Amino acid sequence: MVKEPIVAINFKAYPTAFGRKGLEIAKAAEKVYKEFGGNVEVIIAPPATELRIIKQNVEILVFAQHADPMTLGSRTGWLPIELIKDTGVDGVLINHSEHRLRLDEINVLVRRARELGLTSLVCADVPETGAAAAVLKPNIIAVEPPELIGTGVAVSKAKPEVVTNSVSLIRSVNKEVIILTGAGITSSDDVEAAIKLGTSGVLVASAVMKAKDPEKVIRDMAQAALKAWESRK
Amino acid sequence: MVKEPIVAINFKAYPTAFGRKGLEIAKAAEKVYKEFGGNVEVIIAPPATELRIIKQNVEILVFAQHADPMTLGSRTGWLPIELIKDTGVDGVLINHSEHRLRLDEINVLVRRARELGLTSLVCADVPETGAAAAVLKPNIIAVEPPELIGTGVAVSKAKPEVVTNSVSLIRSVNKEVIILTGAGITSSDDVEAAIKLGTSGVLVASAVMKAKDPEKVIRDMAQAALKAWESRK
Amino acid sequence: MVKEPIVAINFKAYPTAFGRKGLEIAKAAEKVYKEFGGNVEVIIAPPATELRIIKQNVEILVFAQHADPMTLGSRTGWLPIELIKDTGVDGVLINHSEHRLRLDEINVLVRRARELGLTSLVCADVPETGAAAAVLKPNIIAVEPPELIGTGVAVSKAKPEVVTNSVSLIRSVNKEVIILTGAGITSSDDVEAAIKLGTSGVLVASAVMKAKDPEKVIRDMAQAALKAWESRK
Amino acid sequence: MVKEPIVAINFKAYPTAFGRKGLEIAKAAEKVYKEFGGNVEVIIAPPATELRIIKQNVEILVFAQHADPMTLGSRTGWLPIELIKDTGVDGVLINHSEHRLRLDEINVLVRRARELGLTSLVCADVPETGAAAAVLKPNIIAVEPPELIGTGVAVSKAKPEVVTNSVSLIRSVNKEVIILTGAGITSSDDVEAAIKLGTSGVLVASAVMKAKDPEKVIRDMAQAALKAWESRK
Repeated sequence: MVKEPIVAINFKAYPTAFGRKGLEIAKAAEKVYKEFGGNVEVIIAPPATELRIIKQNVEILVFAQHADPMTLGSRTGWLPIELIKDTGVDGVLINHSEHRLRLDEINVLVRRARELGLTSLVCADVPETGAAAAVLKPNIIAVEPPELIGTGVAVSKAKPEVVTNSVSLIRSVNKEVIILTGAGITSSDDVEAAIKLGTSGVLVASAVMKAKDPEKVIRDMAQAALKAWESRK
Repeated sequence: MVKEPIVAINFKAYPTAFGRKGLEIAKAAEKVYKEFGGNVEVIIAPPATELRIIKQNVEILVFAQHADPMTLGSRTGWLPIELIKDTGVDGVLINHSEHRLRLDEINVLVRRARELGLTSLVCADVPETGAAAAVLKPNIIAVEPPELIGTGVAVSKAKPEVVTNSVSLIRSVNKEVIILTGAGITSSDDVEAAIKLGTSGVLVASAVMKAKDPEKVIRDMAQAALKAWESRK
Repeated sequence: MVKEPIVAINFKAYPTAFGRKGLEIAKAAEKVYKEFGGNVEVIIAPPATELRIIKQNVEILVFAQHADPMTLGSRTGWLPIELIKDTGVDGVLINHSEHRLRLDEINVLVRRARELGLTSLVCADVPETGAAAAVLKPNIIAVEPPELIGTGVAVSKAKPEVVTNSVSLIRSVNKEVIILTGAGITSSDDVEAAIKLGTSGVLVASAVMKAKDPEKVIRDMAQAALKAWESRK
Repeated sequence: MVKEPIVAINFKAYPTAFGRKGLEIAKAAEKVYKEFGGNVEVIIAPPATELRIIKQNVEILVFAQHADPMTLGSRTGWLPIELIKDTGVDGVLINHSEHRLRLDEINVLVRRARELGLTSLVCADVPETGAAAAVLKPNIIAVEPPELIGTGVAVSKAKPEVVTNSVSLIRSVNKEVIILTGAGITSSDDVEAAIKLGTSGVLVASAVMKAKDPEKVIRDMAQAALKAWESRK
């Protein structure tokens, strides 16, 4: 359902993530996706408040940044995954480093996403938790090598093992899950490195959301992704 | 900014709270509001995913069910109150019984709501916490007498003290906050009782959201509210 | 380090779990352990407030019911695993159904327990989360088939699959972890069934802690465990 | 039940907080208490694992750093306040800045502490939350002026208003609660300032727990407290 390579953009709650600005970046992502003939999967993950409107306005994959592992009903201020599904989104991020979940909740969300036809993208902080999450059979796992989070070190400059270790440990329990690099992505060089190291693309945030020209950054990253992906064949 | 009496409808995450159904109930609330010439404040609190679209479609007060007590930025899957404000809403529920918050978080949200021009509606479980919350000077407090939560006992049938105690304890520290009855409301009789016991209206959920004819329930409650309110003058 | 079969007793925070009563049950567990010549591993998990005193008074394995996944330092009211270790305990329960943890926290606790020489016992709610936890290489996993939690159905009466499915899924990713049955244990028949279905023993709570004669219950369970274990050879 | 002035020492989970070291500091606190003829209330708050043993070994007030707002029973890894009470402690810290609680939980803990004969000491981050907490009628409130937390600014060097504002706002809703200064205390000068600014003493942690000679620090602070207290009469 999801194609590779992937450039997934987490809007987070940046000032550019919502309202007119958020829609503009969503449109830019769609434009790039079309320029590359759909050969790079450009996924966007806007805040919950924007999902309906953005999904109505773009023809690319839209993911929620989170869903609550509960059923519909008396849930004031929570967003059960069924409610998230109703906005029209295609998938959901689960267990992002800024929104960690309990193991049992991750399991419920991955299972419910599958039942509802939503693509699940689980984040994991180290190779071990990536492999543990892989046992739950989500569609996508984004690994966030701790050596790259908040250290300013980019994937393209880091020791290759920080990514390849995650890939091999995850592959030891799950041959099919799509693996993304979810930290240390600041430039198209990093996108290229991420794919050369064995993952299928990137989950990126500030490099796009804080850019002066987000469209250009997305285009550069998509191009790098496509080139690296094709050179791997 | 908010008028009295008040009928506030918490959509929660009921199956009727979102999509076409949610918009229908929002429209019904607006219709009743206009029928009464704006003399009853009909407030609706839909899920976060619906706020933008509903706010664009109705001319009544729309509240969020929750906001997260954090600033904009790297907040994957969270909804900072600034982001909530941007959807166009007029106010925000804080500390609902299904979404309890830390005391310091309640304080931050009430203060930020004030700074952003949002009306704050804090829920409290017992007279003591209602009074504690009142010290923080929110615009509205909804008291949920524990004798009425999940017991099936309605305000109109309960001992008057369960409401009057809350009112007097809250008034001992705050003369101005608007007080609502936030539990035990299943019929227009309960709305009448809530107002006669000294509160300015009700926060209601299932009685509307699970009704066969939500519009009729809202109308009956608005009428009861107006009648009881005028008889108090 | 831990022998099989195992009868592990979770004291929880029952009225019998602490003070004189708690020490009595600890002593009873030790007595049974010695009667069986150490051939059944009887493990006790008292509340944190009791760990030092109980550990000083019995010569059996004592586990904490929980530890916090943080380092020593400014941690008011928390119990970092290093602090728990200092009480003299031999191991720690992690992710009990009444104290669920985030996946990243489970990983940190299992790793730190290993580094500190503590035996880790991770609880899991369904076969999938049991297998995910097994990837983290704890020493012991207790599976709690949801069909048996709070339903009053005992392991000895349930469909065998509720246990054997967990065992086979866990074994597919980890050949060495010790597996316990962690729900549905009310009698020595259940202990026997748990072991015959392929686990190495039980994690039990109310059946001992609420018994009129806890020592007798522990003895019966230890005997059933030993008998079933030997018949499996 | 609690005398003034007060020097309360939060052991936190520092490496000196438990085992032999923890007991030594507890003994040092007792020694100072006796030197001053009981005219300065020296309170210690060790980790939960140490409460029984320390309480058996010293004749000063011992507080828990936290208690869980739940009843006894199936509460694996939690420490209900009844269980904490059974260790023999005299009181309990509630809502410390490192262990913030929900408003409803603070209310339950203050009420249960009162019913169980435990002294409640509620921490609050700003004057507003201090006043809100004061409405719940705890025995003691420790205010932690945000200007003093983690900024390295000491009470004795700060603008007086950071403390006096808290005192006056709390007094506007509660005339009787004992107020402590809970941040910015690194020396006996700070203890003196805290009392001169209208509070009854201090809640201190690292200044004692990380000292080369904790006994000397406690003695200096007790002396400063007594002197400032007497000069206020």
